[in-house]
Amino acid sequence: MGSAGYDRFLALLKDHYSLRYVLALLDWDQETGMPLRAAGERANQIALVSGMAHDLLVGDAFAAALASAEAAGANDDPVVETNLREARRDHDRARKLPQELIKTIAHVSTIAKSAWTEARRDNDFPRFAPHLERLLELKREVAERIGYEDDPYDALMDEFEPEMRAATVASVFESLRPQLVELVEATRSAPRQPDLGVLRRNCPVDDQARFCRKLVSAMHFDLTAGRIDVSTHPFCTSLSPLDVRLTTRYDAEYLPQSLFGMLHEAGHGLYEQGLDPAHASTPMAHYTSMGIHESQSRMWENMVGRSRAYWEHMYPDLQATFSSMAGVSLDDWHFAINAVRPSLIRVEADEVTYGLHIMLRFDLERRLLSKQLEVRDVPEAWNTGMQQMMGLTPPDDARGCLQDIHWSMGAFGYFPTYQLGNLYAAQFFDAARRDLGDMDAQFRKGSFEPLREWLRENVHRHGQRFRPAELLQRVAGQELSAEPYMAYLRGKFQPLYGY
Amino acid sequence: MGSAGYDRFLALLKDHYSLRYVLALLDWDQETGMPLRAAGERANQIALVSGMAHDLLVGDAFAAALASAEAAGANDDPVVETNLREARRDHDRARKLPQELIKTIAHVSTIAKSAWTEARRDNDFPRFAPHLERLLELKREVAERIGYEDDPYDALMDEFEPEMRAATVASVFESLRPQLVELVEATRSAPRQPDLGVLRRNCPVDDQARFCRKLVSAMHFDLTAGRIDVSTHPFCTSLSPLDVRLTTRYDAEYLPQSLFGMLHEAGHGLYEQGLDPAHASTPMAHYTSMGIHESQSRMWENMVGRSRAYWEHMYPDLQATFSSMAGVSLDDWHFAINAVRPSLIRVEADEVTYGLHIMLRFDLERRLLSKQLEVRDVPEAWNTGMQQMMGLTPPDDARGCLQDIHWSMGAFGYFPTYQLGNLYAAQFFDAARRDLGDMDAQFRKGSFEPLREWLRENVHRHGQRFRPAELLQRVAGQELSAEPYMAYLRGKFQPLYGY
Repeated sequence: MGSAGYDRFLALLKDHYSLRYVLALLDWDQETGMPLRAAGERANQIALVSGMAHDLLVGDAFAAALASAEAAGANDDPVVETNLREARRDHDRARKLPQELIKTIAHVSTIAKSAWTEARRDNDFPRFAPHLERLLELKREVAERIGYEDDPYDALMDEFEPEMRAATVASVFESLRPQLVELVEATRSAPRQPDLGVLRRNCPVDDQARFCRKLVSAMHFDLTAGRIDVSTHPFCTSLSPLDVRLTTRYDAEYLPQSLFGMLHEAGHGLYEQGLDPAHASTPMAHYTSMGIHESQSRMWENMVGRSRAYWEHMYPDLQATFSSMAGVSLDDWHFAINAVRPSLIRVEADEVTYGLHIMLRFDLERRLLSKQLEVRDVPEAWNTGMQQMMGLTPPDDARGCLQDIHWSMGAFGYFPTYQLGNLYAAQFFDAARRDLGDMDAQFRKGSFEPLREWLRENVHRHGQRFRPAELLQRVAGQELSAEPYMAYLRGKFQPLYGY
Repeated sequence: MGSAGYDRFLALLKDHYSLRYVLALLDWDQETGMPLRAAGERANQIALVSGMAHDLLVGDAFAAALASAEAAGANDDPVVETNLREARRDHDRARKLPQELIKTIAHVSTIAKSAWTEARRDNDFPRFAPHLERLLELKREVAERIGYEDDPYDALMDEFEPEMRAATVASVFESLRPQLVELVEATRSAPRQPDLGVLRRNCPVDDQARFCRKLVSAMHFDLTAGRIDVSTHPFCTSLSPLDVRLTTRYDAEYLPQSLFGMLHEAGHGLYEQGLDPAHASTPMAHYTSMGIHESQSRMWENMVGRSRAYWEHMYPDLQATFSSMAGVSLDDWHFAINAVRPSLIRVEADEVTYGLHIMLRFDLERRLLSKQLEVRDVPEAWNTGMQQMMGLTPPDDARGCLQDIHWSMGAFGYFPTYQLGNLYAAQFFDAARRDLGDMDAQFRKGSFEPLREWLRENVHRHGQRFRPAELLQRVAGQELSAEPYMAYLRGKFQPLYGY
């Protein structure tokens, strides 16, 4: 710290991050309330600012400042070490990709997204196929330029989950798959079954909004350093640890939509608020991976928010807020929000089958990238996978291989982070229980601060200081494993379903 | 058009404007709902983006592109001519001010704003005085660097009202002052007086919000290219002609607050929406001056929105919306919203006395700048002026010379544009009546589109093509004059007050 070279480097790095936060505002605004007709100019504004952020990162001034800061060394200061390491990683990665390739991908994926929208609407996979083919080619080129050891998939996934390897994911998923399939089967043939009708009661949207604010405040999400809005697709975005924005959506006839969406996004939000504001606009105040991020949202949504202890505390308030829920018992509510059933659509899937949806996508996109699977064979491979894992065959591709937007954006390597989040979450949760004792007893009293503080101390505040595997090792003393997750699932669903 | 030199120039110019629109979003967000604790990081983001916008404008790349575009010439294309002229003006102006001076002013005015806030709170002018002194020094330096012919005030006012001269303003204000004073006196001693109690009925905020949307839609403000939010100080901002944002504020016990604030901001908004989206991010889609902008807001707020014809159409709906207004007659409402009475606070002033508030400020700041008035003598000069024009003496400086934020921001030369707006508005309104015939009859039917179209055709769509004086000459066939405004005021208030 303090050397002129390092200060110059840090100032440029902060400018780069600040531009990314400005981009986050441009995106947030577009999703939450930008006037419809403004889309064209907004695209120009986004292109301009993201171009500037990229130019700054790959520019010679940044390269020189970084090199000079590296030459001065980190002197065992972990902050300096982290800043240098992450800046080098981003800089090198960006320099490996020519501006022309980035523009081509942006252009092709814009068109691919339109084609995908139409293809899904008309259930017409062949219309989307050539665009998918082209995006795969471009992403193969990206992987070649970035470089990898064994599998081009690694180079792409690395953007979302640094240092994670496809072989590791595949091996963990392999051990997980039969166990999940077995669990699904056990719940399907179990003697007790939930009554999903209790979730379909009329709950006025304004009351839902008030109740959601309560849930989020109970988690100690700081609403003076964040806000809640409505958007079509719920998300969490951050403009600094002191400006974290959640969105949700409301369905007056289906309360779980807003509740669990809100808990999920607030879980992401706590991670962002737990980063150190003193390091704003640097890697130390940046999340370490998408998978770790997802572990926070899944933990609050499912391990906390779908637990019986949580609702022992919250349910009286829920019933007081929504008169239509008066006759529904806590047990029936708790069982219904934990219903397991194979389904066609990922984003509507329950906690258990969700992982199976992810594994299917991981398997297919990895084979697509390595040309073991042809684009034209995707629908058949998809339907076969669904049949094998869930016993369901999609009636059409719109409810099959065309359901997700990710591939049309060229985001190959993103899907596994969703399921890694579930696995990390279970490993962190075990470690938290080891340190905090009877968390259920705390939840029953409405005391969520111990867990939040533990996560802040052990996960959030480190930002990018530790890569996912190192963080996991430090916090849980383990490598990535499916066992804690399976133990958590069995511990919850066996008593519920009574199988 | 079409030359490579011009295209390069235009691309850079558009980038500069786009950055200014991004800044507008950062500001809008800060005023409408940014989390409290985000202020620090937001200041960094704003400093970064405004620095980039400035660097782009003064940079050698822009200078070279501009020079090469100028060399190619405009070939009588008015769009090219406008772009070259305004870019040259902004570039030269920006180049005349060293980065160091700009930073010093930003720094000093940040501190001055805090000092002003405290001084106003504690009614302690001497605490603010040294900051005002320092800002005047800095702004005198700006004026010297920018250059001027007769009066340093011209150099500062030029930023807000291009080519307007202090001598012209002074001469027009001189003719206006005694006429306004006389009109105030006439209403004060008139036989009829309005009952202001009718404005103090309870009107629920949600109903006000719905009614405001109706008023704005009736003006044909396009809500698919704009939005309405709440902020402490109402404003209008634009991120392109297709993204125009209004704010207002609500007082459940005082309906006029939101109604006339909304009409005012929507008047600004129609100007912004009337700019040509095909020229987005260029001078052709930028307002020509603050005074012309204000003419649009004042026209809709006062000439339309406080006319009897307007309320003949709108009042039944108002009464249907607010049950507390059931017993108030149209005549009483119309008289009350047009009440004239001398008052201490500018932002609460009526249509007639408002001009007197402005003249006082114009006179004082002009004398301050030329050192004919010492900072320490401001309170006395202020109070003397108030007594002479309004027959009132402020009980303290908080309600006197400390009431406005403008001087603490160094915004000398801004105040006159408020009153110029009133004068332009009357001149435009006469011209509109000449072309459109009986506008009152149109308003009575709720037909506001003819006026909006006329303004769009004659004022809005030209953007910066014409400077204010030229625009006025083209539209009204006149130079700046106080007579149309006085004729409008007399025509309204004489029959109302029956003097």
